[in-house]
Amino acid sequence: MERKSFSNMDCSVAQCVEVTGEWWSMLIVRDALLGVTRFDVFQKRLGVARNVLQQRLERLIESGVMEKSMYSEHPPRYDYRLTEKGRDLWPIINAMRQWGDQYSAPQGPPVRLVHRSCGNEAMGIVVCSECGEVMNSSNVKIVVNPGRGIDAGALSEAR
Amino acid sequence: MERKSFSNMDCSVAQCVEVTGEWWSMLIVRDALLGVTRFDVFQKRLGVARNVLQQRLERLIESGVMEKSMYSEHPPRYDYRLTEKGRDLWPIINAMRQWGDQYSAPQGPPVRLVHRSCGNEAMGIVVCSECGEVMNSSNVKIVVNPGRGIDAGALSEAR
Repeated sequence: MERKSFSNMDCSVAQCVEVTGEWWSMLIVRDALLGVTRFDVFQKRLGVARNVLQQRLERLIESGVMEKSMYSEHPPRYDYRLTEKGRDLWPIINAMRQWGDQYSAPQGPPVRLVHRSCGNEAMGIVVCSECGEVMNSSNVKIVVNPGRGIDAGALSEAR
Repeated sequence: MERKSFSNMDCSVAQCVEVTGEWWSMLIVRDALLGVTRFDVFQKRLGVARNVLQQRLERLIESGVMEKSMYSEHPPRYDYRLTEKGRDLWPIINAMRQWGDQYSAPQGPPVRLVHRSCGNEAMGIVVCSECGEVMNSSNVKIVVNPGRGIDAGALSEAR
């Protein structure tokens, strides 16, 4: 099936899918968050074909999610590291992990998260930036940003 | 490129990609969270081919993320709704939206989130379930779950 570009969709979820929606990209970002920097280590951990990994890394670099730096000149060898834009994908990866732990880990979660600041095994909880209470799908709604000329009908027809 | 299944990867991020990683699936879930239930409305909003939409909806139903219920017998017509497992994808979608707002919305965020509980436009902030402080990629670490027989080397080699 052909890859459709979402770049013209005026939606930030679609824009995130545009950058990270390739099958492998999120797992590359996951491994980079764990500290992987070397092509061969990504390749071994993911079990992905080298040409596919190369394409995905190049796309993540084009998108500004990763950057590469030479660590050996002869032969030329590169480290691949997340940029700030890439590290800011952490809340997505973490939410994916927690969802997978809840619904697709019948033998229990493979790994645990430790919050270094307090030293406890923990989960990430989403709270409101304004009142601090927990947020979930049932206590939020989406409204058109008045600063943008978005067709409000596109939201209201969804209801 | 052929679809590789991640179902054998012992990683909850990979399991989430397995269920939701098709290009369209996250956008279908996004629209379902906005209240879309009808095939034709999904189709119109997403601009996706009907056969592709049908496949994606069926896959989301097989995965337990959506369910369908008949609302007309002649002709047979169905509503598509998120299950609890599907609604629990909200933190992922919301984190994707916020990331897209930050990095891929040069004209400003298309929509805003309102926290119904307090009535304010807000963002979702990820905080530690144990100490309540903000979590991000720089103050967390991943450890092997001692309850599972995961090879600790798979984590340490990432460092």
